[in-house]
Amino acid sequence: MAKPMAIEVYNPNGKYRVVSTKPMPGTRWINLLVDQGCRVEICHLKKTILSVEDIIDLIGNKCDGVIGQLTEDWGETLFSALSKAGGKAFSNMAVGYNNVDVEAANKYSIAVGNTPGVLTETTAELAASLSLAAARRIVEADGFMRAGLYEGWLPHLFVGNLLKGQTVGVIGAGRIGSAYARMMVEGFKMNLIYFDLYQSTRLEKFVTAYGQFLKANGEQPVTWKRASSMEEVLREADLISLHPVLDKTTYHLVNKERLAMMKKEAILVNCSRGPVIDEVALVDHLRENPMFRVGLDVFEEEPFMKPGLADMKNAIVVPHIASASKWTREGMATLAALNVLGRIKGYPILSDPNRVDPFLNENSSPPNASPSIVNSKALGLPVSKL
Amino acid sequence: MAKPMAIEVYNPNGKYRVVSTKPMPGTRWINLLVDQGCRVEICHLKKTILSVEDIIDLIGNKCDGVIGQLTEDWGETLFSALSKAGGKAFSNMAVGYNNVDVEAANKYSIAVGNTPGVLTETTAELAASLSLAAARRIVEADGFMRAGLYEGWLPHLFVGNLLKGQTVGVIGAGRIGSAYARMMVEGFKMNLIYFDLYQSTRLEKFVTAYGQFLKANGEQPVTWKRASSMEEVLREADLISLHPVLDKTTYHLVNKERLAMMKKEAILVNCSRGPVIDEVALVDHLRENPMFRVGLDVFEEEPFMKPGLADMKNAIVVPHIASASKWTREGMATLAALNVLGRIKGYPILSDPNRVDPFLNENSSPPNASPSIVNSKALGLPVSKL
Repeated sequence: MAKPMAIEVYNPNGKYRVVSTKPMPGTRWINLLVDQGCRVEICHLKKTILSVEDIIDLIGNKCDGVIGQLTEDWGETLFSALSKAGGKAFSNMAVGYNNVDVEAANKYSIAVGNTPGVLTETTAELAASLSLAAARRIVEADGFMRAGLYEGWLPHLFVGNLLKGQTVGVIGAGRIGSAYARMMVEGFKMNLIYFDLYQSTRLEKFVTAYGQFLKANGEQPVTWKRASSMEEVLREADLISLHPVLDKTTYHLVNKERLAMMKKEAILVNCSRGPVIDEVALVDHLRENPMFRVGLDVFEEEPFMKPGLADMKNAIVVPHIASASKWTREGMATLAALNVLGRIKGYPILSDPNRVDPFLNENSSPPNASPSIVNSKALGLPVSKL
Repeated sequence: MAKPMAIEVYNPNGKYRVVSTKPMPGTRWINLLVDQGCRVEICHLKKTILSVEDIIDLIGNKCDGVIGQLTEDWGETLFSALSKAGGKAFSNMAVGYNNVDVEAANKYSIAVGNTPGVLTETTAELAASLSLAAARRIVEADGFMRAGLYEGWLPHLFVGNLLKGQTVGVIGAGRIGSAYARMMVEGFKMNLIYFDLYQSTRLEKFVTAYGQFLKANGEQPVTWKRASSMEEVLREADLISLHPVLDKTTYHLVNKERLAMMKKEAILVNCSRGPVIDEVALVDHLRENPMFRVGLDVFEEEPFMKPGLADMKNAIVVPHIASASKWTREGMATLAALNVLGRIKGYPILSDPNRVDPFLNENSSPPNASPSIVNSKALGLPVSKL
């Protein structure tokens, strides 16, 4: 049993018991649950990843719903335990749900929620942040300064890229890829080359319009091009950001051969999924090309890095923080809580899982609905339009 | 005498002897000098800052011109030595020339060059880079990852700011401040508040037009406001970048009282001059406000940091690399070389020191002129329009 001190309880006399396996940012999610009669219990165990046994302890004998994390293994065992405790709903605090056996949830009639619609801009801003930090060698330069190695201005010290006028390459121009492309095009007047199986008409139209706007204001316009192959992007771009989905066709999309096609001084950014890059080949490439730079938020075998990566000065490595803005993380917590609450209360499911604004407006009560339940069809749950 | 091995020589039989006290990025500047009959000598002494004695050795008995650095003390002694060696020109590889006693140069009829016109975008991009790195805690997160502390995704790990929709404050909206403002407004859809003694009509008009452009494309427009005081910017902005000139009125512009006015989770960036911030007060403020973040390229007593700054996790510190892009640094080297060459050859001085494009176009020969000589009037040198 989890030690009592590791559990934080709100509204102890609430009718419904909702458990969060982790403390989550913000307090709105707690207030929303409490206001509708829930007892909220938050697990503060000092353990990064809770085991199935830990979570069974948390569920206990009576539990109406659980908010959990991508790092937890939600399968037959946990859904069975939750069902026995009278539970109706589980929500990941995440868009993805690779950690959830939805078939098992269906078997026990437990709704499975996720939290789409709040990650796009925050993820794209992390990709932009890694792009700029790599362009100007910020991490390396900070380490040099902190180590007391700076003795005076030198012409060659940490010379990086001027992004203005260079070419940004985007592989995968979905919502996040397009948002990133616009940040680099509009913010830094970079020219765009992108590759995607689908034409991104919206992005193309926007960059065209923006180029015309610049021209009308007496400035050099920006250009865009849809590449006919990924290789074309790799060869031509000075800065490349990866935004594909991960499947069999994108596993090791960036491998030894493709790294060799890139400019010697190119910058590569990955905030999508680790296995999209062959990380062992990347380490070799970084070692052989000291001015090739990489910014990585994800890794092939998270939470680990392949040998040698941690020693590379031309790499920036951050621990999967693409969605780590206050706005996004508080939004995720709110959406996860409302997924669980809606199911407990028997509210309908919102028909458009990406239209989350009404749930996030802090100045008004959220709609009486679950924002996003992935197995609503399988469970035959009522779906409504807002 | 500098050891022979520390001197790199190009075109040993050249008619004019030009010395560079440091290796400079790129090769175009060397080729331009060699093509017009110069013997080029580059000092490779492994010493960050050359002393006056080192430079006297480099000047020797015959020297037509020297390209030097901001870190060197160019006064009576060196100009006298250069004059005796037959020298006509000295150019800093820098915009500033605080290190040069121009009166002494005048006395010996030595032209003093500098390199304006190529730093704006590169400096603004560094400010943007520090802004984004601070917003997403990139340096801190990279250290955590490299130290092997990452065990799995956590809701609270390195939560930072979503810049979109937040307010960027710019103090000093000259060329660099305006370029930075546009990067943050256009790239990240931030609203702008700025303070400057002079109205920045051009910036205001541009942000207005951009807001209209967004609206016409179905998006939320951005807004701008000229603040009536610096304090207004400090109180209202989520991210503040300093771009004032350094003089008596801006010394310790950001002090204890003004830090206290800022939001507890604000981000402060300084790529202007170190003494604009009271660094001791800043260290205290960083210690007391763990989510207040700072990105610094300059320091009060460069190359040193005030005690405690190097230990602050909420600070990013880089060693004066605002102009450190390949394009800018190679441009600075070219302009410095052409300043010296023009004077040796008796070419006129270009009348607009900020119009440097013709000198930097790699596909054509530069004009027969010095790009920027700061004491051309005092020396009565011929000035021409291109």
